[in-house]
Amino acid sequence: MSQPFNEQSVVDYIRQTPLSTSIFANEETLQSAPIAEGNVNLLFRVFSANDPGKSVLVKQALPYAWRYPDFKMPVDRQRIEHGILEVEGRYCPDQVPQVYLYDPEKHVLVIEDLNRHLVMREGLMKQKRYPLVAEHLGLFMARTLFYTSDLYLSSADKKAMVAQFINPVLAKVQEDLVFTEPYLDHPNNRWTPLLDPQVAQIHADDELRSEIFMLKEAYMAHAQALIHNDLHTGSIMLNEEETKVIDPEFGFFGPIGHDVGSYLSNLVLGYAAQEYHAQDPNERANYRRWLLDLIRDTWNIFETEFLNLWENKGNGDWPSPLFRRKYIRQLLQDTAGFGAAEMMRRLIGMAHVHDFWTIPDDSIRATAESLALNVAQAWLMRRHTLTSIDELVDMVAAANASYP
Amino acid sequence: MSQPFNEQSVVDYIRQTPLSTSIFANEETLQSAPIAEGNVNLLFRVFSANDPGKSVLVKQALPYAWRYPDFKMPVDRQRIEHGILEVEGRYCPDQVPQVYLYDPEKHVLVIEDLNRHLVMREGLMKQKRYPLVAEHLGLFMARTLFYTSDLYLSSADKKAMVAQFINPVLAKVQEDLVFTEPYLDHPNNRWTPLLDPQVAQIHADDELRSEIFMLKEAYMAHAQALIHNDLHTGSIMLNEEETKVIDPEFGFFGPIGHDVGSYLSNLVLGYAAQEYHAQDPNERANYRRWLLDLIRDTWNIFETEFLNLWENKGNGDWPSPLFRRKYIRQLLQDTAGFGAAEMMRRLIGMAHVHDFWTIPDDSIRATAESLALNVAQAWLMRRHTLTSIDELVDMVAAANASYP
Repeated sequence: MSQPFNEQSVVDYIRQTPLSTSIFANEETLQSAPIAEGNVNLLFRVFSANDPGKSVLVKQALPYAWRYPDFKMPVDRQRIEHGILEVEGRYCPDQVPQVYLYDPEKHVLVIEDLNRHLVMREGLMKQKRYPLVAEHLGLFMARTLFYTSDLYLSSADKKAMVAQFINPVLAKVQEDLVFTEPYLDHPNNRWTPLLDPQVAQIHADDELRSEIFMLKEAYMAHAQALIHNDLHTGSIMLNEEETKVIDPEFGFFGPIGHDVGSYLSNLVLGYAAQEYHAQDPNERANYRRWLLDLIRDTWNIFETEFLNLWENKGNGDWPSPLFRRKYIRQLLQDTAGFGAAEMMRRLIGMAHVHDFWTIPDDSIRATAESLALNVAQAWLMRRHTLTSIDELVDMVAAANASYP
Repeated sequence: MSQPFNEQSVVDYIRQTPLSTSIFANEETLQSAPIAEGNVNLLFRVFSANDPGKSVLVKQALPYAWRYPDFKMPVDRQRIEHGILEVEGRYCPDQVPQVYLYDPEKHVLVIEDLNRHLVMREGLMKQKRYPLVAEHLGLFMARTLFYTSDLYLSSADKKAMVAQFINPVLAKVQEDLVFTEPYLDHPNNRWTPLLDPQVAQIHADDELRSEIFMLKEAYMAHAQALIHNDLHTGSIMLNEEETKVIDPEFGFFGPIGHDVGSYLSNLVLGYAAQEYHAQDPNERANYRRWLLDLIRDTWNIFETEFLNLWENKGNGDWPSPLFRRKYIRQLLQDTAGFGAAEMMRRLIGMAHVHDFWTIPDDSIRATAESLALNVAQAWLMRRHTLTSIDELVDMVAAANASYP
């Protein structure tokens, strides 16, 4: 096993790669700084002391999660991440970081530094508006998902890619944390205690649990396209001009609606958390309206581009106009279901999100979380008859908190 | 590439294997006879001239379909067939032929000879009744499918098996022949000309085609369990006591309903073809009733055993009584859909079945085929609201021919 990098050894490592002359110059002094974001990989920024604008990001996969050394994770995830960045980069180069180097021996990936970009989740907490993000994410999802589906790939190529991206350990993490534990009395779960009555209701609801398990079955068995599988607002780095989707190490062939639903539902979480983050009632209402428009616009751009690609780049194996409509409707319903599962697990499962845990007041946090839980339940239970994104947006706009 | 066996070389081959002393004895003279059944593999029976009751079946995979040398097929199918026989044999030893020898170098499989058994399709054409076949097939499907699903396997084991049984070439054959060509104007298709009007209606029906494509998408992407994938009455050898399911070389991880639907729908084809094969109206009505009971009983035994295994052997990852009910209901609806696709492709696609092509009279054949087509359309279009096998059986009993 490779030694974990330290600030010196990561510089020595970069120095002996071609990057020392392609990105940097021989005469430059290189320095590094650890980056404590993320839970999974060891991360360093390596930059030129002579010209700090020149920098790269070095990701090292260790056989465990960097932040939680007891949590074993296969180093093979670096191969997966590299493979997916390559596929995504082929079809959507503007929305992924450039890959400078992949070292399969040392499980190291060197990518474009995104130091002019902010994590989207943090941006939403500050009511930032990004005029291009609807288009960027709509196109990113449409392209990466269409081009890895049976609508585009040949039957044989698709099957070979399915085998290439089987990712059992990281998939299992999500199977447990997203689709199982939050619906059982499990020691990993935690939630704001004021939500006890609402959580008790969820845990007692076998109708709800059975719907989650329908989604879990699809998540485990429906190899529809190469999904990012962790596509939330914490996996997006952006500014007003550029949007970059990062960290695809969880990727595998799964249901398209899981990616779309994860992303849109994290916008809903951002919406709910404005209860605290946007203190001024007018600003809160305005920003929430912007988020609702963002959800609607993102889906519409996604749908339009997906259908456009199908029409113009499809493999011709699905000649039926009605099938297209049914396929898209099913994606919308899946999006609602997987989005609901993502929201619930962020509120009553193990892995919570910054939007809420930064709310110091228990009562305000419970109000925001309860609203999001109610959206999730509506999306989940009413998805089978959905026909339009507007219905999903309306459920968000109409939702109230059960607390206080 | 190995030379194709001939009557002498197949005997020489067996002689140099351990079977020459384990199944046969050194002093026995071995003889062989070619078997011209099947389209895919070269088949010989090798037997003792001293004791003709001692015999084995030798299957050799050539890089093409034995009967159609222009049809290239990967010899890897022998690895798949061997692997699946092993899995099936683990969970349902009585319903699969014993494997004596697998030679991965020469792509040869030596299995139990089934010379006391008749192909089920031929038995049905002779109005034979098999008192145990409902139980045998119900249990076979429940066990092989349950034990290879996410309800039993660990998440990681399932994913490893999915990769092991990716079977792109043979899957593609079915994608084209079952789910695509029959619904388009394709040169491979053929049908009894008297059915022209009914076929024209099917080809013009985009609602129907879109439903077939929904099934095709599931067939290609829903890796639910290790399915046999060619489970029709021509893949079953039986007598009154024993039932053996053969020829799993098409197997891969696909939707459970495809296996169950293929089998039950071939019983419907047998039912329809009695129009000719059972000449006496009373005998015809009686035998058709037996077939309807067989469909119902098989499903009920399948469902009972599947739920029983889930209760007692399940991996515990799906604790929801309601989810079980929904899962089974979905299997029933899938069974109807995939069964419908199987019937239609046998009537208006490329690969027809003995039940019908042995009917010399065009008009009687068209009547029988039209009835089966009408069952298929009912199963396909009405499946989304199905809740019980009785509804499917009733659709068969109520069906009429559109011709004459």
